[in-house]
Amino acid sequence: MNDQPVRVNRDRLWDTLMRLARIGSYRDAATGLTGVRRLSLTDEDVLARRQVIAWMREADLVVRIDRIGNVYGRRAGTYDDLPCVLMGSHIDTVATAGAFDGTLGVLGGIEVVRTLNEHDVTTLRPVEVGFFTEEEGVRFGTDMLGSAVAAGRLTLDYAHKLTDDAGASIAEELVRRGFAGPEHERRPIPFAYIECHIEQGPILAAAGVDVGIVTGVQSISWQRLELSGAAGHAGTTPIEHRQDAGLAAAAVIVEIRRMCESGQFGELRGTVGKLALEPGQTNVIPASATMTIDMRVPDDDAMTAAEAHLAAFVADLPRGYRVTGRLERMAKTCVVRFNSDVQALLAATADDLGLPYVKAMSGAGHDAQEIAAVCPTAMIFVAGENGGVSHTPREHSNPTACGNGVDLLANAMLRLANQPDR
Amino acid sequence: MNDQPVRVNRDRLWDTLMRLARIGSYRDAATGLTGVRRLSLTDEDVLARRQVIAWMREADLVVRIDRIGNVYGRRAGTYDDLPCVLMGSHIDTVATAGAFDGTLGVLGGIEVVRTLNEHDVTTLRPVEVGFFTEEEGVRFGTDMLGSAVAAGRLTLDYAHKLTDDAGASIAEELVRRGFAGPEHERRPIPFAYIECHIEQGPILAAAGVDVGIVTGVQSISWQRLELSGAAGHAGTTPIEHRQDAGLAAAAVIVEIRRMCESGQFGELRGTVGKLALEPGQTNVIPASATMTIDMRVPDDDAMTAAEAHLAAFVADLPRGYRVTGRLERMAKTCVVRFNSDVQALLAATADDLGLPYVKAMSGAGHDAQEIAAVCPTAMIFVAGENGGVSHTPREHSNPTACGNGVDLLANAMLRLANQPDR
Repeated sequence: MNDQPVRVNRDRLWDTLMRLARIGSYRDAATGLTGVRRLSLTDEDVLARRQVIAWMREADLVVRIDRIGNVYGRRAGTYDDLPCVLMGSHIDTVATAGAFDGTLGVLGGIEVVRTLNEHDVTTLRPVEVGFFTEEEGVRFGTDMLGSAVAAGRLTLDYAHKLTDDAGASIAEELVRRGFAGPEHERRPIPFAYIECHIEQGPILAAAGVDVGIVTGVQSISWQRLELSGAAGHAGTTPIEHRQDAGLAAAAVIVEIRRMCESGQFGELRGTVGKLALEPGQTNVIPASATMTIDMRVPDDDAMTAAEAHLAAFVADLPRGYRVTGRLERMAKTCVVRFNSDVQALLAATADDLGLPYVKAMSGAGHDAQEIAAVCPTAMIFVAGENGGVSHTPREHSNPTACGNGVDLLANAMLRLANQPDR
Repeated sequence: MNDQPVRVNRDRLWDTLMRLARIGSYRDAATGLTGVRRLSLTDEDVLARRQVIAWMREADLVVRIDRIGNVYGRRAGTYDDLPCVLMGSHIDTVATAGAFDGTLGVLGGIEVVRTLNEHDVTTLRPVEVGFFTEEEGVRFGTDMLGSAVAAGRLTLDYAHKLTDDAGASIAEELVRRGFAGPEHERRPIPFAYIECHIEQGPILAAAGVDVGIVTGVQSISWQRLELSGAAGHAGTTPIEHRQDAGLAAAAVIVEIRRMCESGQFGELRGTVGKLALEPGQTNVIPASATMTIDMRVPDDDAMTAAEAHLAAFVADLPRGYRVTGRLERMAKTCVVRFNSDVQALLAATADDLGLPYVKAMSGAGHDAQEIAAVCPTAMIFVAGENGGVSHTPREHSNPTACGNGVDLLANAMLRLANQPDR
């Protein structure tokens, strides 16, 4: 037992973050900045996985890999058969990422373990640091995949069969990359899970605090929309004869923004990030359009209403545009509320550390929302700069904010790891 | 001199059309039909060029190739130093084409020569059949390219430097493919040019006729629009902070359709056939969008007004969408009116052949609009089926309509080729 707050090594944490960001770094043409591109189970992700596992082993963690490629590093407790306290997040990124999304929770967890080792701190319970496969969902289309499989929301079989745009399945990629581990994906249930993550939003910065305690995650819906019209010559096809799938796609995009601004669906945020027109030629009316629709709102009823409105709008496209639409669900999560005891413990720990904080709901999805289904879970947010932007190389944080967040992680984790029971 | 009408061999013409359509044929997923994909100076186009040249030589035409890859086959006249009568069109296609667009004018011209040979018809003037490089503009971004260079509207140097999406230049591709010919691109001025082409529209079919006499070509404007916003996380970026380039693109597409329906710009037809969003991920707000805008209207003033309106709309995007836009001209042609003497000669010939016809302006651009700048020019339209659709594998015509069109070509050409002067 150790009641004095521990303090992590901020320089070492920052250095580790910066070193990992070099794996998959690229020059971003749009911003002129150096970004990170490390889609799950690509060459870059595999290099990063090997680096993080090496750091885990340097910190004397015992590493195991499960059948969906989730990786856990374990530090024994005095009573090693008690359920562990798990820290973690993910190290895969979107194609245009910064250095912090996901990695802060994983490298922060490793920094916590290094600090415990340096101070010869023992804990009653074992402590683990983990990272989950394909949190971003960019390559295989389903986000929070590894944690959803670990929590049992998605089956291993379902996950294994998901394919990327080139047709490669996760099962194949796991084997090919050496990350089809032997461990069962439904891992031993942790005593608690804490995920430290950059906020990816403006709330903390606006409140002038470095850390936030996350109350939950809003509902997230991902759908794919395929629109079918008819190709035709751009010069000769009369306007009233057209079945322009690109125009119908544009109408859907404009309508989604209108929905967000209407107030009719609470604080709905809708995004069309991906859109492809076929055949994609200057002088040919698009015959088909395929797009993704990302909708988020911190209220399940509002999400139900928004999805119903969108479905009705799509069903009405043949009337206005002579184009038919087919919506297909990619992913859907309801509002998740994090464990109030763990939130209270985080708040008490922040107070003891003298860290001012705000409470906030998460706009982004996180592995924690999946793990919350199996054990008491909460999240720490760390403030980002540039208005908290993320999923762009402009994403940035600073050593102080990151250090404060990981200090909170370390000390809250210690309190949990020294609880004989709840 | 020969005043009896000649009749071409319809079966042979049809067979030639179908044989050429096999080069670059593909199975079209959208329609389930077999289409043609023969982008200029690709493997498929080169195979088709070699086949057409072989047919020219079989018809005893003397073939020459110019420095932009335009190909001409020549049949001597009694007075061989008189300017020739030129027939022709193009054999490159869009990526989702049928068997008739362009090829009818080229293979029809060869069929005319075969018929003259069979009937031992001699002409006062030499007769030529030609095909022009990159009429579609799909690969290198500028349509009617070969004919525009032949007519002097574009310089050889400008054309040579155009590149495809992979960065290959026309100059390189011409050399690599063996089509960088020795002939000067500003060819000897023809006595007249007649292009036979499928209508690619519904007017002829609606009038119940197989052939049309084309009065001119509407104004065509191609522009590229680049929209710059800012990437951001789909879940955490507040709606009012967004700089969504995809949404701005959608607004432009919707506005273009509104312009077409407003009546404010005459019979404007606007098409966005090509649109790319970056970074193109489900959960990332698009940072940039690139699109093409094809506008056509049979009135130069209406085009000027439409372009000005679009430019003003784009200039206003920062206010409504916090996204900036940059319009770049790809191509622009004014309304072209074909030579009234050649139109009158076509009409008289059609009457003599007993072929009912209508007069119509062309919605599509054609090589004839370029050649019209250097010599008396007109066009024959041939009716298409399925409402005249084109730039899709649903494009179709029939042996009778094609035969009637090429009969008209043959006999009008003969009258011109036997004129000692105008």
